[in-house]
Amino acid sequence: MDFDRLFQAQLDDLKAEGNYRIFADLERKRDAFPRVTRHGGDGPSEVTVWCSNDYLGMGQHPDVVRAMVETAEICGAGAGGTRNISGTNHHHLLLEEELADLHGKEQALLFSSGYVSNWAALSTLGARLLNAVILSDALNHASMIEGIRHSRAGKVIWRHNDPEDLDRKLAALPADATPIVAFESVYSMDGDIAPIAEIVEVAERHGAMTYIDEVHAVGMYGPRGGGVAEELGLMDRITLIEGTLGKAFGCFGGYITGSAALCDFIRSFASGFIFTTALPPAVAAAARASIRHLKTSDVERRSQKIQVEKLRARLDTLGIPHLPNPSHIIPVMIKDPVKCRQISDILMDAWGVYVQPINYPTVPKGTERLRLTPGPLHSDDDIEHLATALNALWRQCALARQVA
Amino acid sequence: MDFDRLFQAQLDDLKAEGNYRIFADLERKRDAFPRVTRHGGDGPSEVTVWCSNDYLGMGQHPDVVRAMVETAEICGAGAGGTRNISGTNHHHLLLEEELADLHGKEQALLFSSGYVSNWAALSTLGARLLNAVILSDALNHASMIEGIRHSRAGKVIWRHNDPEDLDRKLAALPADATPIVAFESVYSMDGDIAPIAEIVEVAERHGAMTYIDEVHAVGMYGPRGGGVAEELGLMDRITLIEGTLGKAFGCFGGYITGSAALCDFIRSFASGFIFTTALPPAVAAAARASIRHLKTSDVERRSQKIQVEKLRARLDTLGIPHLPNPSHIIPVMIKDPVKCRQISDILMDAWGVYVQPINYPTVPKGTERLRLTPGPLHSDDDIEHLATALNALWRQCALARQVA
Repeated sequence: MDFDRLFQAQLDDLKAEGNYRIFADLERKRDAFPRVTRHGGDGPSEVTVWCSNDYLGMGQHPDVVRAMVETAEICGAGAGGTRNISGTNHHHLLLEEELADLHGKEQALLFSSGYVSNWAALSTLGARLLNAVILSDALNHASMIEGIRHSRAGKVIWRHNDPEDLDRKLAALPADATPIVAFESVYSMDGDIAPIAEIVEVAERHGAMTYIDEVHAVGMYGPRGGGVAEELGLMDRITLIEGTLGKAFGCFGGYITGSAALCDFIRSFASGFIFTTALPPAVAAAARASIRHLKTSDVERRSQKIQVEKLRARLDTLGIPHLPNPSHIIPVMIKDPVKCRQISDILMDAWGVYVQPINYPTVPKGTERLRLTPGPLHSDDDIEHLATALNALWRQCALARQVA
Repeated sequence: MDFDRLFQAQLDDLKAEGNYRIFADLERKRDAFPRVTRHGGDGPSEVTVWCSNDYLGMGQHPDVVRAMVETAEICGAGAGGTRNISGTNHHHLLLEEELADLHGKEQALLFSSGYVSNWAALSTLGARLLNAVILSDALNHASMIEGIRHSRAGKVIWRHNDPEDLDRKLAALPADATPIVAFESVYSMDGDIAPIAEIVEVAERHGAMTYIDEVHAVGMYGPRGGGVAEELGLMDRITLIEGTLGKAFGCFGGYITGSAALCDFIRSFASGFIFTTALPPAVAAAARASIRHLKTSDVERRSQKIQVEKLRARLDTLGIPHLPNPSHIIPVMIKDPVKCRQISDILMDAWGVYVQPINYPTVPKGTERLRLTPGPLHSDDDIEHLATALNALWRQCALARQVA
């Protein structure tokens, strides 16, 4: 059987609809971020990254890099095993303590990634709790959807960010159901934020477990970077808080926090936790340094908010349409995959501005966008340059403006 | 609802059957490995690790650690995004080239872990190929089983390492099926090795795709560390070779290699690849350094084989029963979870020897074991000490001996 032909046919479809992805080949330079070297094309060039999830530039922070380097020098590269079979390193336990403290929970549990933490935790809860029904926000992340699907538990979708719809759907469950309400705080592609207080209240009224994904919020919201639930004083009313070390904390890995029994349960039964090599000790140490820093330092969060506001204001002045939202994410809607890729290419090649086009399956078809994430390391000049570039492109491509 | 009570009830069952897991809290010291510091109990103590999957000690190799440190100093800690959205670093591409070369394939694709590579690749192949049927060896790893299950493709289990049974099951498939034969080379818990040539021949005869997991073999078998398939000259007859960077290569992460179309297909459609943060550039650089070293250096592989043979010979002399197999893994069968844990505890506390008890769900209930993995960094004295300890324990606990 000619398997390559089968693969190629599906890739050709993807190309025909403009959804084939080309990865930018970048080389980060720690002292220059958000400036990076881009390889390919006519040789290496310098570009400014405007779409990173290293939201606060912590991946470049001296404390974080130092922790990674020093721990690698002492412990070596890998952990050498699964958490159970020789792979638990003291640095994992220190990091789990740090995370439990960050969210005011009894314990935390590390995973290879945020994707795996969602997938493993939800699939284990859904599969092992009798009559589990997972009530999932309509716009939950792929990792949650796959975890729920894998669990084979009952699944009920409620309207995005709509506590009233959740209430109705909880009320309609059979009496013997074990309900788990799964949602995110900051939705990464639209940048909107869930009405957490209302959702928690509805869940409590129905005796449901609450599962929140704060991957786009940890490090960035709340006085110690505990996320939106910390900012709102709601952490203790949420059963399980899931987060990542790979975005605002600038490292790699995912986690859950909750009661000691909950974490021990996932630790003991989740296939995606048990049967996989533990994170490198150096990565765990770097993540811990980042969390510790952001627990007491507010300067990164404050500068980021200022730069986000500045860019929004400039876009408004120029009439470049962007989705309004209360978060740090600025989605500039293009609504066409081919055009989105073209604009991104021109920005990169002519302006040294790197914004990856966001297309299907990351967002629904027809909602293609540029997703801007200004950070504390973007200067005012960077913002001005980006605004000038977008303005020129809007003129050049005759794109629709938005009147304020 | 009292969720903690639900969690605790299932944990209590685990404890009652002796399958509750306690992780050893270790601190690796790069220059001392396999000697590590163990935390807990009556304060830190030094123990020798005998159950690591850092089979060749490459996690401690100067070239590997240097690559990690230097790349962290230059690039920072994290990749800053998914592979598509600003997270592809030049070091990922260099590593993928290195892996494609290692296996003589057109391309390679990196994943967060070996678990994720199996899960994502198999679930994507099974879900997206028309009438896919995955023929899975009965002892395949959890990550493959979960991937197959997640794909919702047809699934047929064939008897472990039995090409004739595979042949019968392939022959029984409907004519329009798209068959994928999934198996491992070295099975990690028994240490046996698949009859790859026969399996490939059967698969070819039926026009089936072949998918081999070489995670316990890459770096260790074959003249350049390409795995058992390289040793047997069979790499070009296997459609997809999956491996890990977290065992013999001493780092972290997983991968697949195959044709350009195959890798592009998985890259473009696998949720577990698309929606997750890319590996830290420093981890990718460390893994590449390890692979490059093991492509030309044979000294680690040779010393390991010698130490494995020495330990086997000592166990035979003492009548300590172990599963015979052609690999580097020495399973000492205990066949009882409680006894297995007790022996492991005495080895740790009284002898400074760390061998994690292997219990359910990693192995079937009733086949609990100590799994020894001698490496090039274990000295002859280490082997003698371990043999002495086991001998004393066999006497003390009146365990059955095996007469040669």
